[in-house]
Amino acid sequence: MRFLLRDRDGGLKPMDAEQLRECAHKMVDFIADYYKNIESFPVLSQVQPGYLRELLPDSAPACPESLQAVLDDVQNKILPGVTHWQSPEYFAYFPSNSSVAGFLGEMLSAAINMVGFSWITSPAATELEMIVLDWLAKALKLPDEFLSTGKGGGVIQGTASEAVLVVLLAARDKVLRRVGKDAIGKLVAYSSDQTHSALLKACKIAGIHSENCRVLKTDSSTEYSLSPESLSEAISQDIASGLIPFFLCATVGTTSSTAVDPLPALGKISNRNGLWFHVDAAYAGSACICPEFRHYIDGVEEANSFNMNAHKWFLTNFDCSALWVKDRSALIQSLSTNPEFLQNKASQGNMVVDYKDWQIPLGRRFRSLKLWMVLRLYGLENLQAYIRNHVELARKFEELVKLDPRFEVAAPRNFSLVCFRLLPTHQNNLESANTLNRELLDAVNSTGKLFISHTVLSDKYVLRFAVGAPLTEERHVVAAWTTLQEKASELLRKSQE
Amino acid sequence: MRFLLRDRDGGLKPMDAEQLRECAHKMVDFIADYYKNIESFPVLSQVQPGYLRELLPDSAPACPESLQAVLDDVQNKILPGVTHWQSPEYFAYFPSNSSVAGFLGEMLSAAINMVGFSWITSPAATELEMIVLDWLAKALKLPDEFLSTGKGGGVIQGTASEAVLVVLLAARDKVLRRVGKDAIGKLVAYSSDQTHSALLKACKIAGIHSENCRVLKTDSSTEYSLSPESLSEAISQDIASGLIPFFLCATVGTTSSTAVDPLPALGKISNRNGLWFHVDAAYAGSACICPEFRHYIDGVEEANSFNMNAHKWFLTNFDCSALWVKDRSALIQSLSTNPEFLQNKASQGNMVVDYKDWQIPLGRRFRSLKLWMVLRLYGLENLQAYIRNHVELARKFEELVKLDPRFEVAAPRNFSLVCFRLLPTHQNNLESANTLNRELLDAVNSTGKLFISHTVLSDKYVLRFAVGAPLTEERHVVAAWTTLQEKASELLRKSQE
Repeated sequence: MRFLLRDRDGGLKPMDAEQLRECAHKMVDFIADYYKNIESFPVLSQVQPGYLRELLPDSAPACPESLQAVLDDVQNKILPGVTHWQSPEYFAYFPSNSSVAGFLGEMLSAAINMVGFSWITSPAATELEMIVLDWLAKALKLPDEFLSTGKGGGVIQGTASEAVLVVLLAARDKVLRRVGKDAIGKLVAYSSDQTHSALLKACKIAGIHSENCRVLKTDSSTEYSLSPESLSEAISQDIASGLIPFFLCATVGTTSSTAVDPLPALGKISNRNGLWFHVDAAYAGSACICPEFRHYIDGVEEANSFNMNAHKWFLTNFDCSALWVKDRSALIQSLSTNPEFLQNKASQGNMVVDYKDWQIPLGRRFRSLKLWMVLRLYGLENLQAYIRNHVELARKFEELVKLDPRFEVAAPRNFSLVCFRLLPTHQNNLESANTLNRELLDAVNSTGKLFISHTVLSDKYVLRFAVGAPLTEERHVVAAWTTLQEKASELLRKSQE
Repeated sequence: MRFLLRDRDGGLKPMDAEQLRECAHKMVDFIADYYKNIESFPVLSQVQPGYLRELLPDSAPACPESLQAVLDDVQNKILPGVTHWQSPEYFAYFPSNSSVAGFLGEMLSAAINMVGFSWITSPAATELEMIVLDWLAKALKLPDEFLSTGKGGGVIQGTASEAVLVVLLAARDKVLRRVGKDAIGKLVAYSSDQTHSALLKACKIAGIHSENCRVLKTDSSTEYSLSPESLSEAISQDIASGLIPFFLCATVGTTSSTAVDPLPALGKISNRNGLWFHVDAAYAGSACICPEFRHYIDGVEEANSFNMNAHKWFLTNFDCSALWVKDRSALIQSLSTNPEFLQNKASQGNMVVDYKDWQIPLGRRFRSLKLWMVLRLYGLENLQAYIRNHVELARKFEELVKLDPRFEVAAPRNFSLVCFRLLPTHQNNLESANTLNRELLDAVNSTGKLFISHTVLSDKYVLRFAVGAPLTEERHVVAAWTTLQEKASELLRKSQE
């Protein structure tokens, strides 16, 4: 395939409709074949650190290479170093959903390739984002105050980390406007020890002192959810010490075990004390489009902001993290800039939303397209069925674990994550059980047949089995369990030798 | 086209290789046709605020719709609201390059759809990024200290805003570790009044006090570049006042007029005073792969960090902002997190780079693929020719402006941006000339035949003509100038009536 085209003046013509058509059709077939053969790859890449530097040249080529040469390298050098998040045997961390609809949206967004910092730079990008996040808010039955038609609204962030950072900044500045910026050393943020590390990172970035980040202990007595009593107590103590409580992050579906913090009680305490109340439902938010799971976010009425990642378990390719706030002006006060070179009539006239003022970066992609296409091409009823199917598969996996007396389920299963572990072979031998489970993790991941990850709960090393890849079917779950049992038997046999 | 597939259990099967193949081929044709017809659209969208809400339903559909229905809506409802950054008549802001190679890279990255926060989550993603940024550093002849083989290295950020934020945080924390975190109110950051607003936003986020952001004045006497004398003086005054200078952002190719700050002199002052010296070459960095433009970044040896946006003028679809640092440990100290659920042998053994610790978000896309494909499919010589062609087209436009006595070139042209304006019709009438140029901007942008933007330099309202869209040829530049002349004639005629 001839790759380079020349324009009339002899210059490189790097965009040409017919060349794009020819090359992109070729890429479509490459990608479709990848999905066709995806089960033939080890799920977790088995390469060693530094493998790729040995395979590629030291510098960029002076002259063009052919598309076929690049595709061959993708096949032979890149794919062996890929951990296949789209494999049906991928059960690690949380899922990162790709779908036909989401992929088509990515294609279209990459093709239009506009930079939507202000309304005027592509009105459709801003307006579709407002509309689609209103759609999703309604599907989640969020309070009307989160809709863009009032004082709130939704915005697509890249990740949940950015979502919690922007609302933390809004909360910080709101309180500092009242108490003076020199009081930053007195601001206190609250969360549980199950809250995602993104909150502590956001606090570091925002200049909240690390000793003022209250990481409240949880344990199995509350199923690893944050106890309202411990929050109340911590706030009282901090106020008594002259500190200024300003932010609470609650989680619906924690990363370790999908614990659910009690939003109604936490929200009341938060509001009584004037805190900004953020709800992180990055993973589990997707499930809340189903009536039977919606109760997990009861209490969201009390929240100032709510976040869910459509790129996790909602068939929208990464990245697409939906954030809603009740008071968009707080965000804008913290994050707006207005340089001359970006001024325009629509913005200066306050006639439009400029999403640059709702986020950290200036530039932004046309990410609402893919979410819009997912919602339209599947429809809410099918999306509900999709979620239910994964929850059901996780329930089946949990049943399998319970049937094997060598294992235990280590935390309640709320959604599609099962936390489990091999039990100690000798009574009360925590450390040896932890070692055994660590070895089991390595053993199964080294087979390439599945990929799972781990966490630690109450000092126990626990394996995490997260169902959520779009291609996963019951047979994959059953096969994964068989591999886990086989490797467990091998390890137990060895440990008794 | 049948869109929904069912798996064996009757559940939704949202990813299927053959359905992906069929639908994506259809999307390729839709996109190729878009590029084929791109000149038929108004460059700047002519819709009114709120146009889209009237065209779309109030909520997401319960049942699936057809791909054809969605594509029809893209054509009829979305595209009219798009400002076509890929149009050959797009001359506003700075370009946002799409190319066949860049688009193919986006497709592949969206298809693999992995989340590369740690090495283990896809070793190829981390390693290719390290290798490709080393390639680009070598093409730019950056000092070896910026290569990943030493203590430095490159990382792909989403935008230049994120790049300046992460290095500002690293610089902030480095000095605060020395002087104590309560001294944050004493930290001073320096830049010129031509520096991108991203720096002030980064300072706000990082908690640097706004009165400690020194925005040093520039004017035409230095061609809008930062004078080393004014920097020296400001630093001395701040030290005398007991403040702590800690950060300097210099720019190569400012947003308003592509002014170039004198890096060697600024770098020496910066180093003498222990400041972190960041060089923002977001736009003009691309040009520096050409030997004849490389001198603009002479002095980068003195810098702690250097940034250029491959997504602007380097044929790599948005987003892809390349940042290099000499001391990666400073970044990592500010941005690392290490929760149990992300721990793994490779990371714990310090055998690998985990890019999550070099950026704000946790998750990240496989963005190096597209940059790698651009470098390989075009080759450095063609990329140089691409840059040179745009600079030459801008030079031709500048000549055309100079030939028309009603206009003036308002700032030196260094790269592919021409700043120009209609001269006052009455001597010394600055305000009426500004109004006239504002009207000219509106008039040409309303034709839909081209899109340009503006800035203000020394109180003069100035029009910006940035050549840099991949499809732009000489005929588009000439046609744009003809439209500008016609609209100028109309306005001047009216103003004399």
